[in-house]
Amino acid sequence: MTDSSTGDAPGATPALAVSTVIFSLLPQGETGRTALHIPLVRRIREPYRGLWALPGGPLGADEDLSDAARRHLLDTTALSPSYLEQLYAFGSRSRSAAERVVSIVYWALVSRENAAAGPAAALVQGDPNVCWFDADDLPALAFDHRTIVDYALWRLRTKMEYSRIAGAFVGSTFTLSQLREVHEAVLGRDLDPANFRRMVEASDAVVPTGEYLTGTKHRPPRLYRYNSPIDLDPSPLGRS
Amino acid sequence: MTDSSTGDAPGATPALAVSTVIFSLLPQGETGRTALHIPLVRRIREPYRGLWALPGGPLGADEDLSDAARRHLLDTTALSPSYLEQLYAFGSRSRSAAERVVSIVYWALVSRENAAAGPAAALVQGDPNVCWFDADDLPALAFDHRTIVDYALWRLRTKMEYSRIAGAFVGSTFTLSQLREVHEAVLGRDLDPANFRRMVEASDAVVPTGEYLTGTKHRPPRLYRYNSPIDLDPSPLGRS
Repeated sequence: MTDSSTGDAPGATPALAVSTVIFSLLPQGETGRTALHIPLVRRIREPYRGLWALPGGPLGADEDLSDAARRHLLDTTALSPSYLEQLYAFGSRSRSAAERVVSIVYWALVSRENAAAGPAAALVQGDPNVCWFDADDLPALAFDHRTIVDYALWRLRTKMEYSRIAGAFVGSTFTLSQLREVHEAVLGRDLDPANFRRMVEASDAVVPTGEYLTGTKHRPPRLYRYNSPIDLDPSPLGRS
Repeated sequence: MTDSSTGDAPGATPALAVSTVIFSLLPQGETGRTALHIPLVRRIREPYRGLWALPGGPLGADEDLSDAARRHLLDTTALSPSYLEQLYAFGSRSRSAAERVVSIVYWALVSRENAAAGPAAALVQGDPNVCWFDADDLPALAFDHRTIVDYALWRLRTKMEYSRIAGAFVGSTFTLSQLREVHEAVLGRDLDPANFRRMVEASDAVVPTGEYLTGTKHRPPRLYRYNSPIDLDPSPLGRS
């Protein structure tokens, strides 16, 4: 945005799009175990016709970037995000042989409560070209979308280690088992329950509510909550 | 980059630009003390004529995003970056009353060795509309560039705390005093020398070279180096 930014002939600048990597925790088809899932959209046109791609499209002339990301999320899953953050702008010349497009990509988390009704309920009904996939078992993706998903997975998993991002997957209150299940599903590995409990109790981010999970158990487990709302974006941009 | 990305009429999509926040450590004019500096370019056209702005401009039709950022750095400072990372895409409708522009912003560090000849040598000679400013004493900036600089400062300072980013400011070998001076300049506060030495020695990132700084001192200080090259980008994108 300097003097020269308006000096070029129209069409010389690459086109601009916004795409979103959406994560949710859903039961795996075969095992029923909770696993990280991503909704993808099947392409019905060339290039890459028939392949799956991230939900996205052009930025509206009067639309903010994050609003475009929210719109794709709503259009694809009929849900609102519990967490939304800009991931990266992908603009390599080599990402498509067709028209050059720079994609500004967001990543979003959808909470268990939102997605509790199951995969089917969390998609726009009746569209066979929209489907949830296990994040660790994806089909071939169009364009450089595999690179984008791998980067989003890396960002999510890195952030799980030092931030309260797990709070965007659990509800407002949760048991330690539920919280551990979130960590296990995102990290893709089992965690020792006793170690996990010690780690959580050593931090002061998670506190007991004084209530217990109601249900069938003889000794119902304690419910916990985060001691403050999730800081959706700790940077100065998040505070503005 | 989905089916609909090519469906809009030309001109409906906002224009695209690349800008770069460039950091270097230079002596302050008054005190001579090392401080964080940023080069800015004075606008010679409306809007915001006469105000200072980040170096930037449109993305070339055949130019990768990071190459555009490098080009602005070279055009503005005649230097190459020792660190370059994408910061964020700024695209709010409210950022300019004129034509809407989405700016993909990079941030860059220029090392002491590169900038050693001083501020004057680190700029394209003879252009009065390009100038280094103390990062904590900036003039009024055009557009939302103040927000962008604040965010870049936050990113740099946050990254100083957990990564080896200071290595991009020092040369290949350095004394602990020089390394501490980098941390002090970036963080904008004095650090206790004994505490700093303990902190550095407790990590294994910095190791003695076995050599000493040659000069006039009776007891020349030890030279250190990082035990491996700076990981410019630890994400999967950096490895590709």
